[in-house]
Amino acid sequence: MRIRGREKLIKQYQMHKAAGRILELPSKHKGRWHELFGNDNPIYIEIGTGRGRFISTLAHQHPDINFVGIELEHELLGRVGRKAAELEVGNNLILTPADASRLIDFFDAGEVHRIYLNFSDPWPKTRHAKRRLTYRSFLQSYRSVLRADGAVHFKTDNRDLFEFSLNELADDDWKLSAITLDLHNSRWMEGNIMTEYEEKFSSRGMPIYRVEARPYPKREQQGVE
Amino acid sequence: MRIRGREKLIKQYQMHKAAGRILELPSKHKGRWHELFGNDNPIYIEIGTGRGRFISTLAHQHPDINFVGIELEHELLGRVGRKAAELEVGNNLILTPADASRLIDFFDAGEVHRIYLNFSDPWPKTRHAKRRLTYRSFLQSYRSVLRADGAVHFKTDNRDLFEFSLNELADDDWKLSAITLDLHNSRWMEGNIMTEYEEKFSSRGMPIYRVEARPYPKREQQGVE
Repeated sequence: MRIRGREKLIKQYQMHKAAGRILELPSKHKGRWHELFGNDNPIYIEIGTGRGRFISTLAHQHPDINFVGIELEHELLGRVGRKAAELEVGNNLILTPADASRLIDFFDAGEVHRIYLNFSDPWPKTRHAKRRLTYRSFLQSYRSVLRADGAVHFKTDNRDLFEFSLNELADDDWKLSAITLDLHNSRWMEGNIMTEYEEKFSSRGMPIYRVEARPYPKREQQGVE
Repeated sequence: MRIRGREKLIKQYQMHKAAGRILELPSKHKGRWHELFGNDNPIYIEIGTGRGRFISTLAHQHPDINFVGIELEHELLGRVGRKAAELEVGNNLILTPADASRLIDFFDAGEVHRIYLNFSDPWPKTRHAKRRLTYRSFLQSYRSVLRADGAVHFKTDNRDLFEFSLNELADDDWKLSAITLDLHNSRWMEGNIMTEYEEKFSSRGMPIYRVEARPYPKREQQGVE
């Protein structure tokens, strides 16, 4: 990124932070997000907002749901803030620069209804497997913050990451549904919001993989194994 | 198939039937397969043997497991019998011309340890979905005859059938494992026995999909949903 572009993003970041859209200490609101949003609506989070078209569009379409966008790269959130402003998104979207590995510091047990993971970094090297957002330790933290009937919605263009994720989820006994190996030619396309990356990638004719997963109590805990 | 080839197959069929390899009334042995095999070894079945390389090789490699090969097309079993004879397979392989939809007439609850489905007919038309061997009614019959810790091992080259099958299995709350979207380049390749079809198809560089599924008691029955 050129320095000038970066400075612009930092300015935008500061502006959206001042306006209350960007919030730097999510752990302060653990267990009390409903007070911040001022209502009891369900909370959906996206881990890794990228440029933010996905979560901004979703928040615009669903004013009755509260959204929290988590992104490690501070400056990207300036861009997400701008996108949200363009779409005139209301107070139902909060952005926060944070590390997803600390999720349980940000949300209480059962406080989250849904987690979106879109085109997460595949970390292709085996020694980096632990960094993948569907690695078992991440799944454990998702299980901790999600309601039992909540869900992770995951999509990716990366076949290896999808295979890895299906196995991690199945091994941890999540209940899978709406599995597709070609989202854009499937019955689950209706209502799909494309990320910037997804639009670019799928226009080349490559398939998008997608799965929903619900934590439920594990069978193992019920004495089956 | 040319008439002469067909006549030859029918002869082979009759020969292997006379020799006890092919058995025409599997329902007679329901609950008593161990008497037929003369031991208490686990029972693995393949639904749709095709030309039989898979189950013959497996039976040859594992004399301590009993195998039952089920194939709707009588004449194909003549070929499977020949393959088994070539490999000098012992009495641990029985072939039977039967319709898989009648599985619960052939086996008692818990009598089967494993079911193999290899490159099953994809029945691509939606109105034929009920004929796919991973359609929910088939899964129900597999659940009926399998031990709780038994498994279905399914592989296919057909992406749509694989997607369909993953969803049917997940919806019916089977515990999935060893899921791969490219078997031949995966860690599950070790010990893989290629069917005739698989060898031909994968040599063109197309991926083979595979999954294992265990029935376990459903979560729904345990009061979770």
